Amino acid sequence: MFKKILIANRGEIALRVIRTCKEMGIKTVAVYSAADKDSLHVRFADEAVNIGPAPSNESYLKIPHIISAAEITNADAIHPGYGFLSENAEFSRVCDEYGIKFIGASAEMIEKMGDKATAKATMKAAGVPTIPGSDGLLDTVENGIKIANKMKYPVILKATAGGGGRGMRIVKDDDGFQKAWDDARMESAAAFGNDGLYLEKFIEEPRHVEIQVVGDANGKACHLSERDCSIQRRHQKLVEETPSPAVDKDLRDRMGAAAVKAAEAIGYEGAGTVEFLLDKHGDFYFMEMNTRIQVEHPITEEVTDFDLIKEQIKAAAGIPITGYAYYPKLYAMECRINAEDPAHGFRPSPGKITNLHLPGGHGVRVDSHVYAGYSIPPNYDSMIAKLIVSAQSREEVLVRMKRALEEFVIEGIKTTIPFHIKLMDDEGFKSGDFTTAFLEDFDFSTL
Amino acid sequence: MFKKILIANRGEIALRVIRTCKEMGIKTVAVYSAADKDSLHVRFADEAVNIGPAPSNESYLKIPHIISAAEITNADAIHPGYGFLSENAEFSRVCDEYGIKFIGASAEMIEKMGDKATAKATMKAAGVPTIPGSDGLLDTVENGIKIANKMKYPVILKATAGGGGRGMRIVKDDDGFQKAWDDARMESAAAFGNDGLYLEKFIEEPRHVEIQVVGDANGKACHLSERDCSIQRRHQKLVEETPSPAVDKDLRDRMGAAAVKAAEAIGYEGAGTVEFLLDKHGDFYFMEMNTRIQVEHPITEEVTDFDLIKEQIKAAAGIPITGYAYYPKLYAMECRINAEDPAHGFRPSPGKITNLHLPGGHGVRVDSHVYAGYSIPPNYDSMIAKLIVSAQSREEVLVRMKRALEEFVIEGIKTTIPFHIKLMDDEGFKSGDFTTAFLEDFDFSTL
Repeated sequence: MFKKILIANRGEIALRVIRTCKEMGIKTVAVYSAADKDSLHVRFADEAVNIGPAPSNESYLKIPHIISAAEITNADAIHPGYGFLSENAEFSRVCDEYGIKFIGASAEMIEKMGDKATAKATMKAAGVPTIPGSDGLLDTVENGIKIANKMKYPVILKATAGGGGRGMRIVKDDDGFQKAWDDARMESAAAFGNDGLYLEKFIEEPRHVEIQVVGDANGKACHLSERDCSIQRRHQKLVEETPSPAVDKDLRDRMGAAAVKAAEAIGYEGAGTVEFLLDKHGDFYFMEMNTRIQVEHPITEEVTDFDLIKEQIKAAAGIPITGYAYYPKLYAMECRINAEDPAHGFRPSPGKITNLHLPGGHGVRVDSHVYAGYSIPPNYDSMIAKLIVSAQSREEVLVRMKRALEEFVIEGIKTTIPFHIKLMDDEGFKSGDFTTAFLEDFDFSTL
Repeated sequence: MFKKILIANRGEIALRVIRTCKEMGIKTVAVYSAADKDSLHVRFADEAVNIGPAPSNESYLKIPHIISAAEITNADAIHPGYGFLSENAEFSRVCDEYGIKFIGASAEMIEKMGDKATAKATMKAAGVPTIPGSDGLLDTVENGIKIANKMKYPVILKATAGGGGRGMRIVKDDDGFQKAWDDARMESAAAFGNDGLYLEKFIEEPRHVEIQVVGDANGKACHLSERDCSIQRRHQKLVEETPSPAVDKDLRDRMGAAAVKAAEAIGYEGAGTVEFLLDKHGDFYFMEMNTRIQVEHPITEEVTDFDLIKEQIKAAAGIPITGYAYYPKLYAMECRINAEDPAHGFRPSPGKITNLHLPGGHGVRVDSHVYAGYSIPPNYDSMIAKLIVSAQSREEVLVRMKRALEEFVIEGIKTTIPFHIKLMDDEGFKSGDFTTAFLEDFDFSTL
C-alpha cells in the first residue's frame, strides 16, 4: 500500500481524499495556491506545499510544480480529485515517468475516453448502446430519409461545424425531412460557412442516468448502481439521487451490465462513471465515460456503504475488487451548496462566511471544506458544500433533505440553499417524473 | 397522526425529536428554562414556552408547568426524551388525565419496570433469564451453601441494607462460605445496624449488552439487535457500539428472543430497551428495562436505518409495527462528547464555546444542540454532542471514529474528546475483549 499520497486538488474533494487516507493510515500531502492557504485541506493534511499563485494554470494545473511537490515530499502516489488534472493524459503520463502512481486512468485510457468520436466507436464495437447516427456527413436527402427510417423517427439534423443549437433541426417524419434539410443547410452555411449535415437519433425527454463502475488490474469490473443527475442548469448538475425514479430493477440490471461491458472492454482500472441518456421509452445510450471520481459519488457510498476513494486507492495499488453490497431499500440524494445567488442567475457570491452551522442528525452527511471565518476565493468553482441525505424511501429523503437545508446556516454570502428548499417542495420534482429540461421552466424569481 | 408535539426536554434529545417531527410534518413546542433560552431546541421548534428558572425541579421536572405549556399551545402529545420525566409514572398518568398522549410507557408499565424487585419477578415469570438469588434473606449458613450449590459458584453475599460495596463478599466454594458469611454479617451490622444477608449468583467478567425492542398496541414486539455499553466510568456510559464484539448470530437470536419475550409479557408499546449482563460463559441475565428512548439509540439507527423517534411516535399513534431490516455487515459506534475534563476526574467544564467545527464525511453523524458562541449552562448533564460513526467493519469504525474525533474542534471548554482519541488507540479496546471494569485500569493521566 502507498505510504504517502499527494492530493493534486483543493476544496471539499481534497479534504474528502485526506479523510480516507487518514482512515487507511496513509500520510497526505496537500498542495495549495496562495488563495487557498487558509483552506481546511491544508490544515488537515500531514504536509502542505505552496505550488503558486491563485490562477489555476499557475498552480493546480501546473504539472511541473505538482510533480516537484511530490518529489520533495517523497509522495509515492497522486490523487487528482475531479476537475483540474484528473482527466489530463499528459499528467497521468508524467506521473508514470517519474515513478509516482497516478490514482486514476492511464494516459491511453484518458485519451481513448476523452475523444468523443473514439469513445463512441469503442463503445459501439463493445456492444454498448450508443446514439444511432449517420456515421459521417449525409450526401443526399434520400439517403438521409433512408437512415432516419432505419433508426426510427424522431431524428435530428446537425451541422458538422455547428454549436449553440444553430444548424440543428428535429425531424419527426419523412414529410418534414426536405424542409428541415433545406433550413439546416442554409442556416449552417450562413453561420459557419459550411453546410455539411449529419444525422442522429433524437433522444426524447432524456434523463441523465450514470452508472458507477469499479475495475481492477485483472480486467474485472463491477457496478454499484446508478445515479440520476437530471436536475441540471446549463449542463451543471445541481441535485443527484439514487436510485433513479425512472430505473427499476430490470433496467438497472441492463444499464449496469452495459456499463460493466464498457469498462471491461477497455480494461478499465479504478472508479469510473459511464454516463447514459435514458429516453422516455426506457432505451439508454452511451454519452461519455468519466475516468475519475465524480462530485456526486457520496450518494452511491450512502446506499452501498463502500468508500469509493478507498476503492480507487486499492485499485491503484493493485488490490483486486471484491463483491459489492447494494441495499435496495436505501435512497440517497445530494444537493450542491454553491456560493451563488440563485435569484440572480446563479451569479457567483464569493466572500467571507461570517457564521456557519451545519445540519446533523440521522441520515445527514456534509462534505465541506469551509468553516466560520473562511473567505471563499473568487478564483475557483463555487461549490462550498455537499449536503447528502439518505433514508428508507424517496419520500423520506425529500422531507429529510428539506429539514437539513432549513437547519443549514451560512451567513455572509449567498448560496443555493433557498433554491434547494423550493425544489424539495416542487410537485414536479417530488413526483420523480422529470427530464434534463426540468429547470428550464423553474421559477427562480421568488427565491 | 398527532398535529403538535411538545418536547418535555432540552439539549440534543429535544433537537433530535424536533428533527423527526419536522420530517413527519408535525408541529413542535419546545419548553425551556431560563438557562436554556439560547439553546438550539428553542430556535428550531415552531413554538417555545419558558417553564421556569434553571433548577430542574423548578422547570423540566415541574409537571404542572409542562402540562400548562401543552394546554396553552394546544399540543396533542408530549415526548419526554430521556432522563427528567421520561420514566415518571405520575407524569404519564397526568398526561393521560389531561387527554394528552404521552409518547412513552403507561404509568402502570413504568411502575412495573421501575421497581427492581417487581421487574425481576415479572421477567422471571415470563421465562426471561434473571440473576439467580436466594429470594429473600438467608437464615443459616447451611441453607446458603445449599442455594449456592444450586445456582453454582461463584456467588455473592449481599447486605440487605447495603450499598457502596459494604457488607458484600464473593464466595468461590463451600469452604469459603462460613468465613464470608461471618465477615459480611459483621460488616453490615457495623455499617447499617442490620446484619441481614441475601445471596446472588456472581456474574463473572460481565459486559453490558442491551437489546432495542419496539412493541405495538396489538401486543406484538420485535427487536433491532444489541448495543454493547460496557465502556463505562462509574456506571456512566461513555462509548456504545453495535454489534457487540461478544455477540454472534446465535447469541443475538437468543438475547433478542428473550427481549421480545420480556416486552410481549408486559404488553409493551413503543421503543424500549432490555438491559442484560452478559458473562464470560455467554450466559445473560436481565438487569432492567428502560421504558424510554436511550441516549445511544443512534447506533441502532445507523445499522437498521430505522428512525427510532419516528417508531416511538408511530407506536403512540397506534400504528402497528412492520418488519425491521438489519444489515449485519454494518457496524456503528457512538462517543459521548461531554463538557468534562477527562484528565481531572471528568470534572464538569461548563462555559462558552468560542469556536466549533464539526467533523463530516462518509459514515459520520453528529447529534448536538451546541454552536459557536453557545454557553453551556452548569445546571444540567454535561453531554454536548454525540459523535456516531458507521462502517463495514469494526476496524473501519475505529479508524473512522479516530479521524472524526481529530477533526472535531471545540474551543473554550474541556471535553472528553482526548479520552476518546486515546481509547481508539488502546489495544484492549481495539481487541473487543473487555468488560464493564475496563476503565478501572485506564490511564487518564496522560490526557
